[in-house]
Amino acid sequence: MTQLTPNPDRLFPADPAERDIARRLYAEVATAPILSPHGHVDANLLLENEAFRDPAELLITPDHYVTRLLHAHGVPLGELGLADRGVPSSASGADIWRHFSSHWSDFAGTPVRYWFETELHDVFGITEVPSVESSDRIYAQIAERLARPEWRPRALFERFNIEVLATTDDPADSLDAHRALAADPTFAGRVLPTFRADRYMDPGAAGWRDALTALADAADIDTGTYAGLIAALKNRREYFIAHGATATDTGVLEPTAEPLTTAEAERIHAAALAGTASEADTLAYRRNMLYRYAEMAAEDGLVMQLHPGVIRGHHAPTLERFGPDTGHDLPDQASFTRPLRRILQDFGTNETFRLVLFTVDETVFSREIGPLAGFYPSVFAGAPWWFIDTPAAIARYRSAVTDSAGFAKTSGFIDDTRAFCSIPARHDMSRRADAAFLAGLVTTHQLGEDEAAVIIRDLTDRIPRSVFRL
Amino acid sequence: MTQLTPNPDRLFPADPAERDIARRLYAEVATAPILSPHGHVDANLLLENEAFRDPAELLITPDHYVTRLLHAHGVPLGELGLADRGVPSSASGADIWRHFSSHWSDFAGTPVRYWFETELHDVFGITEVPSVESSDRIYAQIAERLARPEWRPRALFERFNIEVLATTDDPADSLDAHRALAADPTFAGRVLPTFRADRYMDPGAAGWRDALTALADAADIDTGTYAGLIAALKNRREYFIAHGATATDTGVLEPTAEPLTTAEAERIHAAALAGTASEADTLAYRRNMLYRYAEMAAEDGLVMQLHPGVIRGHHAPTLERFGPDTGHDLPDQASFTRPLRRILQDFGTNETFRLVLFTVDETVFSREIGPLAGFYPSVFAGAPWWFIDTPAAIARYRSAVTDSAGFAKTSGFIDDTRAFCSIPARHDMSRRADAAFLAGLVTTHQLGEDEAAVIIRDLTDRIPRSVFRL
Amino acid sequence: MTQLTPNPDRLFPADPAERDIARRLYAEVATAPILSPHGHVDANLLLENEAFRDPAELLITPDHYVTRLLHAHGVPLGELGLADRGVPSSASGADIWRHFSSHWSDFAGTPVRYWFETELHDVFGITEVPSVESSDRIYAQIAERLARPEWRPRALFERFNIEVLATTDDPADSLDAHRALAADPTFAGRVLPTFRADRYMDPGAAGWRDALTALADAADIDTGTYAGLIAALKNRREYFIAHGATATDTGVLEPTAEPLTTAEAERIHAAALAGTASEADTLAYRRNMLYRYAEMAAEDGLVMQLHPGVIRGHHAPTLERFGPDTGHDLPDQASFTRPLRRILQDFGTNETFRLVLFTVDETVFSREIGPLAGFYPSVFAGAPWWFIDTPAAIARYRSAVTDSAGFAKTSGFIDDTRAFCSIPARHDMSRRADAAFLAGLVTTHQLGEDEAAVIIRDLTDRIPRSVFRL
Repeated sequence: MTQLTPNPDRLFPADPAERDIARRLYAEVATAPILSPHGHVDANLLLENEAFRDPAELLITPDHYVTRLLHAHGVPLGELGLADRGVPSSASGADIWRHFSSHWSDFAGTPVRYWFETELHDVFGITEVPSVESSDRIYAQIAERLARPEWRPRALFERFNIEVLATTDDPADSLDAHRALAADPTFAGRVLPTFRADRYMDPGAAGWRDALTALADAADIDTGTYAGLIAALKNRREYFIAHGATATDTGVLEPTAEPLTTAEAERIHAAALAGTASEADTLAYRRNMLYRYAEMAAEDGLVMQLHPGVIRGHHAPTLERFGPDTGHDLPDQASFTRPLRRILQDFGTNETFRLVLFTVDETVFSREIGPLAGFYPSVFAGAPWWFIDTPAAIARYRSAVTDSAGFAKTSGFIDDTRAFCSIPARHDMSRRADAAFLAGLVTTHQLGEDEAAVIIRDLTDRIPRSVFRL
Repeated sequence: MTQLTPNPDRLFPADPAERDIARRLYAEVATAPILSPHGHVDANLLLENEAFRDPAELLITPDHYVTRLLHAHGVPLGELGLADRGVPSSASGADIWRHFSSHWSDFAGTPVRYWFETELHDVFGITEVPSVESSDRIYAQIAERLARPEWRPRALFERFNIEVLATTDDPADSLDAHRALAADPTFAGRVLPTFRADRYMDPGAAGWRDALTALADAADIDTGTYAGLIAALKNRREYFIAHGATATDTGVLEPTAEPLTTAEAERIHAAALAGTASEADTLAYRRNMLYRYAEMAAEDGLVMQLHPGVIRGHHAPTLERFGPDTGHDLPDQASFTRPLRRILQDFGTNETFRLVLFTVDETVFSREIGPLAGFYPSVFAGAPWWFIDTPAAIARYRSAVTDSAGFAKTSGFIDDTRAFCSIPARHDMSRRADAAFLAGLVTTHQLGEDEAAVIIRDLTDRIPRSVFRL
Repeated sequence: MTQLTPNPDRLFPADPAERDIARRLYAEVATAPILSPHGHVDANLLLENEAFRDPAELLITPDHYVTRLLHAHGVPLGELGLADRGVPSSASGADIWRHFSSHWSDFAGTPVRYWFETELHDVFGITEVPSVESSDRIYAQIAERLARPEWRPRALFERFNIEVLATTDDPADSLDAHRALAADPTFAGRVLPTFRADRYMDPGAAGWRDALTALADAADIDTGTYAGLIAALKNRREYFIAHGATATDTGVLEPTAEPLTTAEAERIHAAALAGTASEADTLAYRRNMLYRYAEMAAEDGLVMQLHPGVIRGHHAPTLERFGPDTGHDLPDQASFTRPLRRILQDFGTNETFRLVLFTVDETVFSREIGPLAGFYPSVFAGAPWWFIDTPAAIARYRSAVTDSAGFAKTSGFIDDTRAFCSIPARHDMSRRADAAFLAGLVTTHQLGEDEAAVIIRDLTDRIPRSVFRL
């Protein structure tokens, strides 16, 4: 097969009758607008609206989903365009693309392959399968299109039918791009900032002191004290809310949260600035900060997204050479029921508080996340994320979570991507996977097809809109 | 669809040929008598045989499977009939029922919805789908039926074709109701007590001292010493056996068991009564008691059921207001291989000893429970329980456990319910799920259909009868 | 059904169109040569090529997959031919076989049943189902065949179409059998040793001192020092390589690896020989040895196979009476991401280093093994092993691992068996399971059938050949 032709029935069940049901359910949402409440696209991309430079820089180099598997097959990251200790890569775009093409078969069965097929075909009109032989040809076709106005970011945003796109932003960010986009009468989309304050949590981390300074500047509040830091964070949350933010995002290794007294928090804050904080101190400080983030969310209503369980920078030599987010963040066991108990005791039934739980450890779906979302009004079961953002894992997630939380206590799909052009492929995958799951419930007579149609529309629109307060 | 019509093929596989096999296998057991070796119905219900008061009090308020998801959607427990710090709810039955009806769609895909459809239709003859519009009408129909003699507990017991129903009882219980039922020539069912001695295990728990007193009264043995407690428990086990008990039930957070010397156990017992036991003391005491429960089971032959891994009363404010068993018991990670090693070394190959392992953490099915049941003659893999007592989880359980334990080392279905009217729906679900699983093995030629028919009959009758020594 | 007729379509999906695809994919590899890079058959079996003594001694007594489930159903191990504290069993082969036959139904749905059906039918020409009635007849048929030249080990080796068979050998082994087989012009198969140095890792274990002595003799290097032990191990690795070895095998309870300084390792080595090493010492020593095994693998290129997570000899009384490997090794929770970090930081991107990760805890497939194999060039996801070497678990493994590692970073099938006659049945099962999984991807249009055909050929041939450097 050298024709690249994504099948209109892809991801639908094998049984013909069940497949027909899936087809009809998918048709309900196939062209629905995209709500993307969690992602990592830069707002400046849309503000500046410049042509993408080249296919590799757009689709390969920055996407660690792609580069990690190429690396696993022996391609050095430096040959994929990543700067090595700041020294730019000498690989040309066509070279990089050829690496990808020559490993096309190694992606068989992976979601990256699935997204790429859709994306190459639907976004760029590619009709042949990537291979060493076709590599330069396909590269040239994409490059040619990228130069045209119809492939500029805003045109794609419109063509992708994106209604809401949330970005991820540091509390010290000016949000100038978001403000300019909102003020621009020629741009109809909603691009919302998301408040991500991870780097203020850990006084043991390298960048903490610099982060405090940047935050102090942004908020015009001294962050030399713990009280100042809290005040500055609250100030910036209000600023984010004023610029359209509806949510925060927090990534931690483990989600235990325990409040400290202000005095104790001040003591550790001062010790950390003095360079005398112990490891136990910084751990206690982090757990207090996670508690405070929940407390703030219960006050101001920003939806709290929590992503625990990933060991960042697992391979130190790669981290040193190529920096973070280069494919070696790796999952560890996760736990929620016990570590979140304090937060949930204090805010779990608070009407303002909302907590969306994500995991890369699937074992918690039926054991913890589903049951928590099935009791606490504030808790929602986040869509499968990162390593498990795949057709097979979505099916396992639905099967595991629905039993105790149903559909309406799940978050709706999030694409979580920095690969702008993969957004429609990812949302389409999710809609198809949900159609397949619902078709299974209809076929086994656990659900009527009319009700399944309502549910898939809700999952695509009403639920993410409501969960993320869009 | 406003007609409530549970499909006769529900839960069967999609493929027509496979579905036909499932139909035939299900037909083997569709009308078989119900053996319910583990549940929480009160024996007095059948002794007194009074009409149920109203639909909400029967079907909603006491069923935390139902109230927890309504709570998750923002309905306060007080509006569902639960007393708040002892103050009765002011909600009428029809009000409560309306809450349930208005959230009918939020139960889509959950086992609660599945059971209710069967129960409303088959037990109460309801033919329309619950909704805000139909709520009062359905409520009135059920209420009208409840007033009739055919819907009294004993009539339903007979209609449900229940042969054996095990209750759960405190060792200090007089078992008067069980004795009276057994002596009643007009009642043919077997209602058996189950010995649940959790509250005697933990000298750090609030009710321990009162429990000792009640037990001392029941056994007429002083429980002021550890030796006295052990003697009283043995005495009451004999009493339960004399009243038909064949099993005990034990719920613990973690199932580690380690014996103490008598002297050490006496020391902690005395310290606990004096209020001076340390946390390490009470932990050691609990682990010793779990060991002693196994030791007693190896002596007297009561089947030991073990249910670890649930954090009880996760949300303290709800516990304080509405009491235990109100939907916020939540699962945590479970482990068996290591914690049970001492018990299994000492009693695992004892012919009298029998241990049925239940879990709410599915990860242990293929990793621990299946392998343990596949070596130790005493160990049986308990059916999926509580949060995972669902069609999808039953399929995962069978798939995970059969590999190393086959079918004959599983326990057979337990309904574990306090919702009397859901018993037939739950057993029917299990029979259908097993038929579907077996049809899969037949279709993939791992099993002949004739052998599958024997297995489903065994799972429904011979196996639970044998495992629970009924 | 009393006819034993393994269906040609077994393990293929239910849907007719999907089943056709699976049939065609399976046909690509149905008769491909067997590469068995990991197993426990003794090389002397092939060297000596004597007739197998009797069916029970061949198929029941030494196979703990079989004896464990019989034991779980109450058959004492002594009645299955196992020597009890060195006293030979008095059970006759026919007696033992009758135990197995009478429990045939208890194996329904298990992989043991599946393998036996294929093996009895295909290898021994048995056409009736085992039962108490048929037991002696089947036993006699097998016994009669075993006496014939066509059932001698080498004839079967040829008939099974085994190209490569790896054994598992102690570093002190002379490898005489391997050398003689390689030199024998009448034997065309490749029988390769595998270096298994577990017993040199743990200075706290009973046999450590004797192992050091045996190794010193084999290598002619004094192992009284740590440096000597390391030198002797390197010496024997070279010896193994010279005799065709391409891999090592290492089983540990937990895979944490941390290097010690030579001085510290020498200190513990000496203390252990003097009987004064603490538990902390022996733990540190074990972790250092695991690190050194990786270091050696990065130097000499022997593929490192790691099998953690099994508690050996869980039931001490059985261990004392019947010895190790008698069915009571039991799985515990496993973890890789964190414990392997040090090894992977130091050798993970080394071109010579290769690490194949196996697990009996399925939860790590999507959470740890897939993601690790999807970044580190050195890491491969080992096939499901031991308790999860089953059709259902293979499907779960493929589903969980493919998302982040694709197919080409998996190991290919290993049979890991000491049951020589089950080898073709096991490989056939794996090929069918892979055909079924791939047919699912084709049916849902995630993969073209032509590409799936390439993949199944690769999984059966190119991948194991490449991963294990055969």
